[in-house]
Parts: sequence; C-alpha cells; structure tokens
Amino acid sequence: MTGPRLTPLAAALPASVPFVGPEAQERALGRPFRARIGANESVFGPSPAAIAAMRAAAAEAWKYGDPECFDLRGALAGRHGVARDNIVVGEGIDGLLGYLVRLLVAPQTPVVTTAGSYPTFNYHVVGHGGRLAAVPYRDDRVESAALADAARATGAPLVFLANPDNPTGSWIPAEEIIRLLDALPEGCLLCLDEAYADFAPPGALPPIDADDPRVIRMRTFSKAHGLAGLRVGYAIAEAGLAAAFNKVRNHFGVGRVAQAGAMAALGDNAWVDSVVARVAEARARIAETAAANGLRALPSATNFVALDTGRDGAFARRLLQALAERGVFVRMGFAPPQDRCIRVTAGTAADLDAFAAALPEALAALG
Amino acid sequence: MTGPRLTPLAAALPASVPFVGPEAQERALGRPFRARIGANESVFGPSPAAIAAMRAAAAEAWKYGDPECFDLRGALAGRHGVARDNIVVGEGIDGLLGYLVRLLVAPQTPVVTTAGSYPTFNYHVVGHGGRLAAVPYRDDRVESAALADAARATGAPLVFLANPDNPTGSWIPAEEIIRLLDALPEGCLLCLDEAYADFAPPGALPPIDADDPRVIRMRTFSKAHGLAGLRVGYAIAEAGLAAAFNKVRNHFGVGRVAQAGAMAALGDNAWVDSVVARVAEARARIAETAAANGLRALPSATNFVALDTGRDGAFARRLLQALAERGVFVRMGFAPPQDRCIRVTAGTAADLDAFAAALPEALAALG
Repeated sequence: MTGPRLTPLAAALPASVPFVGPEAQERALGRPFRARIGANESVFGPSPAAIAAMRAAAAEAWKYGDPECFDLRGALAGRHGVARDNIVVGEGIDGLLGYLVRLLVAPQTPVVTTAGSYPTFNYHVVGHGGRLAAVPYRDDRVESAALADAARATGAPLVFLANPDNPTGSWIPAEEIIRLLDALPEGCLLCLDEAYADFAPPGALPPIDADDPRVIRMRTFSKAHGLAGLRVGYAIAEAGLAAAFNKVRNHFGVGRVAQAGAMAALGDNAWVDSVVARVAEARARIAETAAANGLRALPSATNFVALDTGRDGAFARRLLQALAERGVFVRMGFAPPQDRCIRVTAGTAADLDAFAAALPEALAALG
Repeated sequence: MTGPRLTPLAAALPASVPFVGPEAQERALGRPFRARIGANESVFGPSPAAIAAMRAAAAEAWKYGDPECFDLRGALAGRHGVARDNIVVGEGIDGLLGYLVRLLVAPQTPVVTTAGSYPTFNYHVVGHGGRLAAVPYRDDRVESAALADAARATGAPLVFLANPDNPTGSWIPAEEIIRLLDALPEGCLLCLDEAYADFAPPGALPPIDADDPRVIRMRTFSKAHGLAGLRVGYAIAEAGLAAAFNKVRNHFGVGRVAQAGAMAALGDNAWVDSVVARVAEARARIAETAAANGLRALPSATNFVALDTGRDGAFARRLLQALAERGVFVRMGFAPPQDRCIRVTAGTAADLDAFAAALPEALAALG
C-alpha cells in the first residue's frame, strides 16, 4: 500500500525545523533548566493588566476570536498613526512571514536575505520552493547595500531584513533603511522584521508610512510585551497588501484569549518601559560576565546579547551543551561566522547569576 | 510605483473569506447579539478545570509553547490508543486542513469533497490552486460512494469527508467509512473531519487504526470542549504523514496557554459528558421550536440542528437577517440545496428562549 501522494515540492522538503524548543532539551537532560535565557522571551513576564485580561477571557474561550481582530487592529492603528486597514494580525511574526512568503514566492522565485539571519523566514521561503540569495553580514551587521544589489541581480520580489537583527543584536539606522528602499528595484518588497523594535535605540526605526507599497513591517507581542506563549504578531502594510493576507490566512487563527491579552498589553506602556529598562540592565550584566570570562559582547539593540567566543561554531555548540548541562539554556548564531557567538537573552538577576556561575565552569570543561 | 509582485496564483485568488464572524454583524447592527448560536461554539463553556489551567498559564505566557506539544500529544495518544508520533497538534482543524492541503495539493491538483460541505476546506484547496470536484449530497447526507467514484474519475490524491457533517448535522455509519476507504484508489488519502465526534451516536466513528495510511482524522477542542477561542485541533495519522506536517507547519503556532487549556480539558471527561447531554436537550428544544413554526429539523449528530425552511437560499438568507435584527445569530447552509436550511447551534435555555421568541416574529416579518 502506498502512502499519501505529497506534491513534488512537499516530498522534497527537508524535515528540519527552524528551532528546537528548550522543552525538548529538558526532556533529553532529564531536568528543567534553571535559567531559560535562550529564546529571547521576556523573563519579566507579561503586564499584570495582560495577565488579568487573559484570566478574564479564559471563561469566554468557548467563543472564537473575532476573525477580523477589529478592536486590536484599531488599537494598533491608533498607536502607529495608520488606518485599521493597514494592520494585519497573525499567529506571531512566524505565522505572518509564512503568509507573506506564500503570497510572493512560487517555486524558483528568488528571495534575498542575510546569510545567518532569522532562520524561520528561510524555512518559509524553502517551504514554498523559493531560492534564497543570502548576502553575508559585514562586521556582524546587516549590509543593506548588498541586499539591494542582490535584489537587482536576482530580480527578487522580496527582501528580508531584521532590524534590530537576530541573532547578532545589531541594528542599522533609519536613514540606511530609507536608502535601501530607494535602492530596491521597482516592485520589490522589503519585509522589515522589527520584532525587537521596543529595545531599539532612537534612530533605528524609520517613520512609518503605511501607504508606502515598498515595505511591510512586522511587530510582535512576543518580546517586550512578554506574550510569546499567546502567539500574536502584526504587520503594518499598504492597505492593498494587507488585504491580500485575507486570501491565505487562517482567519480564526488568533483566538479570543490571545486578542484579549494583546489588547491589554498594548495599553500598558509603563510595563513595556519597565521591561526595556530591566533588559538594558541585564544586557550590561551579561556583557560584564562575558568580559570576565574573555568573551566579547556585541553591541545589542535587542533583549539579548551575542557573545563572541573568539572560536568557531563547533566550539560554540559545545559551549551551549556545557551550559545546558549546568542548567542554563542559551542559543547561538545560525550560520558562520556568527555561529562563533552564543546568544544570551536578558534574564532576571537569578537567571544571570546562574549564567555567571555556569559560564566559567563550562569554558573550563571545554579546555 | 507598482505594488508587490504577488505570485500568479495569489494574484488570482478571490478576497472572499470562509466565514464572517458574528462580531462583524454586531458592528453592523450596532448592538451585541442576545443569542450567539450560529458558529457551533459550545455555549456551555470550557471545563472549569480548563479555565483554571488557562488562568494559571496566563502568568507564564511569556514562554513560547513547546513546539513539539509533547505532553499534549502524549495525552492524546493515550486517549486514542495510538503513539505520540501519530498525533499532530495545530491551530484548530482549520490550521491543520491548511497544512494538509499544502502537503498534497499543487496547482491543478484535483480534490474531492461534497458540494456545500465545510467551506474552509475548499478555501484551502482553492488557495493552493487545486481543482475541486464536488459531489452532491443525497437526501442531505454525504454520499460516500460518489466520493470514491469522483476520486477514481479525477485521480485526486485527497478526499474530504466531515462525519458528522457540517452544515447538515447528518452522519454516516462507520461501516460506510470503511467501505469508502476500501473503494478509494491506491494512494488517495481520506481527510475525515471529526470535529463533532463527541456528539456522534454509537456506530458513527470507525475504530482508529493509526497505521492506516489511507486516512487522516481531524479532531478539535473547539466544539465539545468549549475552547474555540484557544485554537487547538489535532490530527491522527500514520506516523510518516504526521511527520510531514513538520515540513510546513508554524512550529510555535500553538502557544503555552492553549496547550495548558487543552491538556486540562482533555482530563475532564465528566465535563464533556455533561455538555453532550445538554446539547442533546438543546437539539430537542430547537426541533420543537422549529416544528411549532412549520420548519423541519434534520436529524443531527452534532451540536447544531439544520432547520429546513422549505424554501430556498434567498429565503434562508432573509430569515437569518430577520433573526439577527432580533438579536439572534444563526447561520445557514453553504450551497444549494442545503442553503434552504438555517443552522442553529445548541444554546442555553436563555439562548433558545430568545430563538423561540424571535423565530415566529422573523417568519412573520418575511411574510
């Protein structure tokens, strides 16, 4: 008996996944991590207002969420000074990236990104049969001019740029984004992943012009708002492009509890401010710990810090494992040469104490 | 300036959506519905244990959910007597249908379903460029032999069958499903949507053989478990097919709060039993109200009842509007001739009082 007849594209896809969760590592280790500072989650948690809203919504979880996310889109539009029709809400940025790629990428479509940047974007491109043209980082920063060159050379309809960047934590100034937009060929869309926008320094985020058809910006409640486990992201785009998501999205994919939590989180600016401040302290502490152990902290505009081991990816991988065995979950760069770095998320004082204790032991164990 | 370059498939897709939410109707009407009995949600709510679990998880919503849904898949495997590797968890059955279609349907791929059955399946098929071959209902029941005939005639790799069915509420016996599997051509997969399984009479659900590569079964926490607003569905499939979902799914798409709520709901059998009993009472009451107003209730194996207006789709649509104006949200069949029926979800006593009051008024208003 033969099995189901997958499409040729699906049959050829690798079974690999973008990220293995810390829970899988905990199961392999046989014990929970003491410090969960690897997935760039916000250890400081959601706003108390968001927690209260989720708890209140729990009893109403029998109702589907509004498939139009009308209220949330309205609140987001107000926040960003755009129209509701410029906002698309989806199942995290990951979900929105999948829809965007599906809209723009057919088999053999060229797509431009930075080699070693956010792998889930690549996962979606490969999953739709696209051909990735990946330009290298330059000094651990995205090189926007090279992205534009690659877009012209390949004729790509889509360019990906995370600013601030994951996994390096680096950022480029708004003027450079604007120059990139002007340098892109006609009809090429920039997907500007701003998941870490709340942590960015002044001047990293270009002003939002929602009528600009050259760019779609992705934001999330998973980082500064501390709601990674709810799965709510959104895109800001020209209304025609935003409407095109209705052709392919899972219309009821963002549930009632998620919409309620996100709405309340959006209303608590003070919480985000306090998280940003604590993240800044944590970044400084991570850099101190790194320096004390001979590792260099890369400048960060995010809620994590990439630490240069001065060695290679194989070493970083062993260091990750040695830290995991000591109860500390961190991650590393996704491709050479950034895979020489480990990536440490801003943690609580207890998390960073655990990291500070484990790092020298782990380094010593590696010799 | 030209806009983004959508793929030819995406550019050609209609902007239509499978369902308009009741919230959109409430916004149009300018007031909330008194009775929300149109989306086959469980008005009886989630299990108190599920509510408590969601509330407890709210403070932990800063953590991504386990992308492998390991614990939930394990619990579901135990429930169904299959292996964890036979279970795929996704963002509701809607999300899983999307992934399944993406795995099996390329442009021009023929796909078989029943004309007027669950439209979100069709949405996904059209969205991936597939060609729908839709066979008619027979006496408001799915005709499985016609599905097999169409699969042979078209060479479809995928056949959809909802049992119990939406929107008719009808069901076919397990033996007929088994005969259908035997009649399908080699390599053709049956997608058996069992969203309403908990309400089905004995004998409607074939025994589960998770090693059978000819069938994938879809279940959900949105109906009897009362968690439509959490977005958790699952599929039971041969392990190789289940693993293929990892090629395309949004790995972090089912969040921590959702997994926690579903786990607790799964553990509360007494709650599901009580919901099923209350749904049976509500169905009887809906049928009584229908009969008192000259409408015929179709037999139902679900948490809703299709009421035959004895007229056509245009009449049913006007009746829906007249009911909506009287504060009652219900839906109707999706295609002729089932669109002559309105579809009323099992409600609380108050919901059904409102329906009983509104129906004669609405009918009278239509003349």
